[in-house]
Amino acid sequence: MTQIRGTQAGSGRPAGGAEGAGGTVAELGEFGLIAAMSARLPTGPDVLLGPGDDAAVISAPDSRVVATTDMLVEGRHFRRDWSPAYDVGRKAAAQNLADVAAMGAVPTALLVSFGAPPDLPAQWALEFTEGLRDETAEAGASVAGGDVVASGPIVVSITALGTLRGRPAVTRSGARPGDVVAVCGRLGWSAAGLTVLGRGFRSPRVVVEAHRRPEPPYDAGPEAAELGASALIDVSDGLLADLGHVARASGVRIDVDTGTLDVADPLRAVAAAINADPLRFVLTGGEDHALAATFGPDVELPERWRVVGRVLAAKEHGQTGGEPHAGAEPAVTVDGEEYEGPAGHDHFR
Amino acid sequence: MTQIRGTQAGSGRPAGGAEGAGGTVAELGEFGLIAAMSARLPTGPDVLLGPGDDAAVISAPDSRVVATTDMLVEGRHFRRDWSPAYDVGRKAAAQNLADVAAMGAVPTALLVSFGAPPDLPAQWALEFTEGLRDETAEAGASVAGGDVVASGPIVVSITALGTLRGRPAVTRSGARPGDVVAVCGRLGWSAAGLTVLGRGFRSPRVVVEAHRRPEPPYDAGPEAAELGASALIDVSDGLLADLGHVARASGVRIDVDTGTLDVADPLRAVAAAINADPLRFVLTGGEDHALAATFGPDVELPERWRVVGRVLAAKEHGQTGGEPHAGAEPAVTVDGEEYEGPAGHDHFR
Repeated sequence: MTQIRGTQAGSGRPAGGAEGAGGTVAELGEFGLIAAMSARLPTGPDVLLGPGDDAAVISAPDSRVVATTDMLVEGRHFRRDWSPAYDVGRKAAAQNLADVAAMGAVPTALLVSFGAPPDLPAQWALEFTEGLRDETAEAGASVAGGDVVASGPIVVSITALGTLRGRPAVTRSGARPGDVVAVCGRLGWSAAGLTVLGRGFRSPRVVVEAHRRPEPPYDAGPEAAELGASALIDVSDGLLADLGHVARASGVRIDVDTGTLDVADPLRAVAAAINADPLRFVLTGGEDHALAATFGPDVELPERWRVVGRVLAAKEHGQTGGEPHAGAEPAVTVDGEEYEGPAGHDHFR
Repeated sequence: MTQIRGTQAGSGRPAGGAEGAGGTVAELGEFGLIAAMSARLPTGPDVLLGPGDDAAVISAPDSRVVATTDMLVEGRHFRRDWSPAYDVGRKAAAQNLADVAAMGAVPTALLVSFGAPPDLPAQWALEFTEGLRDETAEAGASVAGGDVVASGPIVVSITALGTLRGRPAVTRSGARPGDVVAVCGRLGWSAAGLTVLGRGFRSPRVVVEAHRRPEPPYDAGPEAAELGASALIDVSDGLLADLGHVARASGVRIDVDTGTLDVADPLRAVAAAINADPLRFVLTGGEDHALAATFGPDVELPERWRVVGRVLAAKEHGQTGGEPHAGAEPAVTVDGEEYEGPAGHDHFR
């Protein structure tokens, strides 16, 4: 019943173990797996004490730490036949690192719990680890520790930590009427890729790649904070759903101007093939991990931030602190109108 | 494919939702579940920004944060028919909080990822949450955020954060020849309880309770640091296994003196019933989350720290940084002799 913490990995074998491991994780063994994973995970300067003890120690230079956690379950959040292990690792890291950026913070470290079926090829675990490593490095952080357990499906749970570098956190609740809404990063690409994979295809390759490996603009988070963003969020559930979170938390309405939205050719191609409106990908597709922010109307935005809408006063009583109920005015409109169709997703339904 | 972060919970429904919920988590719905769980989780003073945003913000007063993570999978780490939901919550929190204490740190906050099958009774999730809350409060911390996803078995992944309050971290690698080995907390009770449950019994009740709900002596971690402990570890895998981690990380040997070990009556009763040596529970039973530390020979220890062994020089070359190989001298001995029988556990084997 006891479980072995990946944080014991530092007492493991020399680096480079299990290179090209051909067997299963059971054959490699728990300590062998931990050692081989750890060997692929160099720690960066923010990790004061890395894997190998009961816990890691990570720097928090301004006496605060930003922390977020996400769990991915095989078959629900990823499929082994749709994504290589390396990309699952990159994506798992990306979605947590993007949440840190969405506070205006800079990622410092990741902790990773990895549940694996005993018959999982060890090579899968190691390629996953390399994906984790590379994505984390891209965000300027490193893996500080973790846990390896046996489970039925693969389960990955990641906690990302970060530093605000002395700035206040940029929450979802600061949007004010008169602000503009701007987005940095891609919208709808991952959803288009998922649609393609779901129908058994592998092209257009760019959207499949976008689904497998999002490219969150990590440094745009601290940039938005520096520019004085009034609210900031990671677009993980879809633009309308996530702007809805901002609108409700801020007690405002948000209107999206579809004329400003970039609908890229590959999205048009996928939409045409399934006889759908490509705008639906852009408005409701999640998992690209773009950042959406609100800024005062006079802020001069760098080119990569595209203004896509504006913040309006809520018509009636403030809507802070409640999910919408029947008859409530919509928190987010599209070209001034209520958007039809599901903007979000309930996992249990 | 997108997942909803529990950190969105703050935008949820008013507190007290789903009181006495009779349905499943699917019937309650994802946002309803998050709201009802959040309503049971007050945040403490170390949580500067709690659930409801992309990430939480937690204080790290000495500019460092201690962080550790553990994953529990239903059927492997707990069984619903053996432990009530409340106790699973307490235990899940306890094993992570104990890891923070085992660095000499004080827990500040927990992040919790909860994977639940859609047909899970909502009441189970809420009682689990209450267990989490109470154990976390007992350690002086609170839950700062989390994630709720759908999964097959219940999967719980917890990250615990803590502060060293300006002290150095007490690692596993500082034990020196001449030090004494001392333990604070129970040993073998959880293993005895597991043995009882595994044979279909429910008594002695005290060991079953000990298995369901460990009682780590959280404040003994900072106390050990204050007393100048040279090494410190959480006894999660069993005394011999965990002292083995200390011995190998420190490049020393450790000898345990069984004459000093307290073998409580309920452990004797269970051992007698299965015709086993009760000392085996004490030496190899995990999950009680006692703390084991090494101290210089002249340190005056408070009564709750029991000296159970001593640190000796490694006979040959230092053993730092490697798991034992065939023919190596044992890192831990019992009354001067190699202990026969498995001291640890490989999850994948």
